[in-house]
Amino acid sequence: MIRFECDYLEGMHEKILQKLQETNREQYPGYGSDPHTEHAKAILKELCGDGHAEVHLLVGGTQTNLTVISSILRPHQGVLCVNTGHVNVHETGAIEATGHKVLALPSEDGKITAAQIQAAYDGHWNDVTHEHMVQPGMVYISQPTENGTTYTKAELEEISKVCRSCGLPLYLDGARLGYALASEGNDLTLKDITALTDVFYIGGTKVGALMGEAVVIANPAFQRDFRYLIKQKGALLAKGRFLGLQFEALFENGLYFEISEHAVGLAMKIRRAFENAGCAMRFDSKTNQQFPIIPDAMLDRLREKYAFDFWEKTDEGHTAVRVCTSWATKEENVESLLADVKMLSGK
Amino acid sequence: MIRFECDYLEGMHEKILQKLQETNREQYPGYGSDPHTEHAKAILKELCGDGHAEVHLLVGGTQTNLTVISSILRPHQGVLCVNTGHVNVHETGAIEATGHKVLALPSEDGKITAAQIQAAYDGHWNDVTHEHMVQPGMVYISQPTENGTTYTKAELEEISKVCRSCGLPLYLDGARLGYALASEGNDLTLKDITALTDVFYIGGTKVGALMGEAVVIANPAFQRDFRYLIKQKGALLAKGRFLGLQFEALFENGLYFEISEHAVGLAMKIRRAFENAGCAMRFDSKTNQQFPIIPDAMLDRLREKYAFDFWEKTDEGHTAVRVCTSWATKEENVESLLADVKMLSGK
Amino acid sequence: MIRFECDYLEGMHEKILQKLQETNREQYPGYGSDPHTEHAKAILKELCGDGHAEVHLLVGGTQTNLTVISSILRPHQGVLCVNTGHVNVHETGAIEATGHKVLALPSEDGKITAAQIQAAYDGHWNDVTHEHMVQPGMVYISQPTENGTTYTKAELEEISKVCRSCGLPLYLDGARLGYALASEGNDLTLKDITALTDVFYIGGTKVGALMGEAVVIANPAFQRDFRYLIKQKGALLAKGRFLGLQFEALFENGLYFEISEHAVGLAMKIRRAFENAGCAMRFDSKTNQQFPIIPDAMLDRLREKYAFDFWEKTDEGHTAVRVCTSWATKEENVESLLADVKMLSGK
Amino acid sequence: MIRFECDYLEGMHEKILQKLQETNREQYPGYGSDPHTEHAKAILKELCGDGHAEVHLLVGGTQTNLTVISSILRPHQGVLCVNTGHVNVHETGAIEATGHKVLALPSEDGKITAAQIQAAYDGHWNDVTHEHMVQPGMVYISQPTENGTTYTKAELEEISKVCRSCGLPLYLDGARLGYALASEGNDLTLKDITALTDVFYIGGTKVGALMGEAVVIANPAFQRDFRYLIKQKGALLAKGRFLGLQFEALFENGLYFEISEHAVGLAMKIRRAFENAGCAMRFDSKTNQQFPIIPDAMLDRLREKYAFDFWEKTDEGHTAVRVCTSWATKEENVESLLADVKMLSGK
Repeated sequence: MIRFECDYLEGMHEKILQKLQETNREQYPGYGSDPHTEHAKAILKELCGDGHAEVHLLVGGTQTNLTVISSILRPHQGVLCVNTGHVNVHETGAIEATGHKVLALPSEDGKITAAQIQAAYDGHWNDVTHEHMVQPGMVYISQPTENGTTYTKAELEEISKVCRSCGLPLYLDGARLGYALASEGNDLTLKDITALTDVFYIGGTKVGALMGEAVVIANPAFQRDFRYLIKQKGALLAKGRFLGLQFEALFENGLYFEISEHAVGLAMKIRRAFENAGCAMRFDSKTNQQFPIIPDAMLDRLREKYAFDFWEKTDEGHTAVRVCTSWATKEENVESLLADVKMLSGK
Repeated sequence: MIRFECDYLEGMHEKILQKLQETNREQYPGYGSDPHTEHAKAILKELCGDGHAEVHLLVGGTQTNLTVISSILRPHQGVLCVNTGHVNVHETGAIEATGHKVLALPSEDGKITAAQIQAAYDGHWNDVTHEHMVQPGMVYISQPTENGTTYTKAELEEISKVCRSCGLPLYLDGARLGYALASEGNDLTLKDITALTDVFYIGGTKVGALMGEAVVIANPAFQRDFRYLIKQKGALLAKGRFLGLQFEALFENGLYFEISEHAVGLAMKIRRAFENAGCAMRFDSKTNQQFPIIPDAMLDRLREKYAFDFWEKTDEGHTAVRVCTSWATKEENVESLLADVKMLSGK
Repeated sequence: MIRFECDYLEGMHEKILQKLQETNREQYPGYGSDPHTEHAKAILKELCGDGHAEVHLLVGGTQTNLTVISSILRPHQGVLCVNTGHVNVHETGAIEATGHKVLALPSEDGKITAAQIQAAYDGHWNDVTHEHMVQPGMVYISQPTENGTTYTKAELEEISKVCRSCGLPLYLDGARLGYALASEGNDLTLKDITALTDVFYIGGTKVGALMGEAVVIANPAFQRDFRYLIKQKGALLAKGRFLGLQFEALFENGLYFEISEHAVGLAMKIRRAFENAGCAMRFDSKTNQQFPIIPDAMLDRLREKYAFDFWEKTDEGHTAVRVCTSWATKEENVESLLADVKMLSGK
Repeated sequence: MIRFECDYLEGMHEKILQKLQETNREQYPGYGSDPHTEHAKAILKELCGDGHAEVHLLVGGTQTNLTVISSILRPHQGVLCVNTGHVNVHETGAIEATGHKVLALPSEDGKITAAQIQAAYDGHWNDVTHEHMVQPGMVYISQPTENGTTYTKAELEEISKVCRSCGLPLYLDGARLGYALASEGNDLTLKDITALTDVFYIGGTKVGALMGEAVVIANPAFQRDFRYLIKQKGALLAKGRFLGLQFEALFENGLYFEISEHAVGLAMKIRRAFENAGCAMRFDSKTNQQFPIIPDAMLDRLREKYAFDFWEKTDEGHTAVRVCTSWATKEENVESLLADVKMLSGK
């Protein structure tokens, strides 16, 4: 079985594994005060172009989201988020468990707009009973979204502008950020994202690391005491060295960008193969997740050999699936899929 | 200005005031262990037809909702609720502040159906990633709803049946319960509601009391330690006598039902006057809240003399408003409104 | 039975009752936007000597404490408090339920010192692992304390100074504040307390009101959005008029101070009677709560006629009890007690 | 510098590293549903002698404690714990952040007794105002404690008995459990601990793993929906395989027990060397943490070469330090220390 159902099927990139071996018996102080963590943070600050930013390394995405969001909001505030957002749907109420409502905004493709944020803000403040409602306190977006779609620089600038004029801190979930940075037509850099958001994170778990997410806090207002929050939420790894080593390996020589390009390149090949076979795409993704709508008969045949993630039935005879590539996807497996799609579609 | 914008404009029914005077210098132990509270509870248990039910008197609705809901759910569970539900919209995130997501279900009229509950339950458990999502842990409904609509006995039986088969405790918010019990065509009694729900409350604040809500816990599983929860949430009144006195006055001679009928009778007169004037109703309410859709020109004239609660613009030239009556509404004020509606509509 | 066991045995001062009757059918908007609440707030601001202070009227003490404290602290912060403090012992974990640790400091008499606060602050920041511990985020004191003892102006100034130099907001729980203001030797005014604290409350429930606590927020940093918090915690009374009316009655003509003096005067008579009878005092209280240590034989006799609150066994043959007076205590009942103490002690 | 200041200075045991390499490119489903995790769980259940127990692998200790404790308690309940307990002191209020008070019990050596638990339970229920206080809802102990001391089988049996008779679930924090199992005179097995507690965890981070704690839930009442809780608290590792691999390596051939013995053996050599040098021990630890009280002059000399963890000044001229060994401590480093202690003490 050749598996394309998610981007966390394998372990870690071998360069990380090597670092792990080389440093295993080194003695380092705990909780992230080791030289590898320091080095990783310095590299990331440099790449983000912000010497005053703070970087913290956490273990996982849900953990990062709940720690960041609960550190920013006051008790009566909620977080604006697309209705399909990870924090709204797939974190077992992690945000609510810290006391805050997720204020969901509708979307067809996983993205929200500056106009929606402005409208939600105005809607709240113009309502005479606003004190009886959760106050929008910040904005959460993902890059790429759960649907593989991405914000352009112009879109992110507009969102950032609205957020700043409304006093709403902007937080960007970059669980798969590498794949967005490597996407066709992307015009956003780490420096742009740092400048346009208040806090964001660079995902490691889905982009070559065994685990780990690097939180970048550009806004000094949210830097204060952040390590207390990490500890309280159970997110402070005793052997923090392991997070440091991973981000060091991923960023000291551009590995993160390289493997992201690898994954996206293969994903786009898959997309084109399905398009050539006459399949529409459920979402217009240019990242490592593709969502072809496949005739069921063809899908049945493909599934004998390939694992995809079921997304939804789009009509009687068609099904949308999610096809993922990653830093670890083998070229030969993609070639095999391309050939089979071509063969099965007869096109 | 004659005011119809809500049902908490005046103080309390005079029979309560009288009791307050008569007992003011009596010395009672605090926290609800006084004879009036005991008496009020005994009357309510009798009316609910359940000697094993527990009754607790709390101060307000939001407080009651957050105390009950947080006492029932485990941390990973949420409460199913209509999207317009009070706990979802108008309590500043009180439920989320106790750690729980409100799982909103769509509705046009403020009611949800047994089928919706079943579907939400099935949808959760049939999703292979359900552990990544908030588990439906109970159901919240209101009688009447925020839109003045009501559940019939058959509907409540169906909801109750689904809830029991799914293991979902059913909680009914009765902030305006009196007005539902007094509504045209109502076929539900306090006994029915006690038998069909796990917990519900009989609202006092909007039905003659200065404040106070009587929680009836029929399911013994949710009776345990409830007073601790009341205290923790700041809902245990030191001079609990005042809550006891009010419910004693409201229920010892049927006053609650009497004043509810008074309010509903007047509300239905208002409804018919607007209907005669050619106004459609935004919701089909048979309770003390009516939602006529009024031509803006007519509304402007009415507003010179009457206060209504703005609901929404329904189209360019029309506006839906909320018109409320209560235990305290004067017949003469209603007559005046009826005459003006008739006169302004020319019908 | 003549009852001295607490200060919330009766209803409300008759002047409040009268106001209630006079205004009962007046129509006011809800949630505290009525003229009586406005008036009460204006009087209190005047008495506090701070036109920029915000005043909010809440229902009860636990509710007030949890609303204020959770509005001030960030998630990783706790509140410094004497070990016998109400929030630490007698609120069923209300503060912890909002996510915050109560950081208890030892005391013999219910008071803490500026030096203790400074030491707790220094202890935290000097510990190299401080990020693994709850950060002191504010200070909670009561005036009078649970033991009836009071802070002098010099003591409060010192505490205030330390709090400000450490950046720790100071919150004073004044559930029985009237009795402290009326105590022998008191040199603190409402103006002093307003100037020396960030937030405090003037208790109504135990000083003549049926219920109600007036929160005074002098520090503008903690004024923002406070009404959202009140609503979220279930503390926003729909018929807020009732809170307004009570504080209006208590403060428009000095009634609050008058009845406090009444209670304290009687309490001091009781104290002296016990002292004359050879009884030591468990705490040196000059307020409405007295804690005589009574020989058990004498106590048994007194209990035939009088109800006290058991405090603790101090040794084999002696028991400390709490004897409370209040705004409602009758002179004749105190005289009776004085006579019996004298008679039973034979002194 | 030879470092003895903690037991998480190095990476992971080489057998784990090897497994990591061997399996790195294997494709496994996420979130702990891989074969290594399954295998590790099966081994642990076998060792615990309870086929009905559930085993879950989490990342860190604070995370494990907050997830377990918040899954067991109802909102008004707190956890009984020694005052020096990790959850009370060193987790930045992680338990309180989930809404629960830590109810601290005094101790000189880090242990609590069955009698203390019984007294706390009785004290609560015998207090007439118990509804105003946090209800003891479970018991937390550590084996070994923060002071390196351990419970005997008889002591744990007694505690377990009291907990069961009081209805208080017993949770044992085994962050360093291996070192307790390997301690001189230990008479407890994993089977005993499983039988005597409701939930406990076997710590990996401090005993050879890079990270990871294995929670064993013997009581079926607390097994339900536990994975939801893990996810909500951000503790569900996407690449759960890594946790599985580590516990597989540690337990499939007894490695965990072997390395624990190694550490404890060296620690006891250190203890004896200090005792021979005339140093008293601050605590009577038979595990991998030793707490010698060292004359300051001698300590200054030792510190030129060795790193210890400062514990406390015991008097003018003496200091207690913590000396830790671990699975990774080298025999030669210990020998060097022994020689220097002997030389410096002249004994």
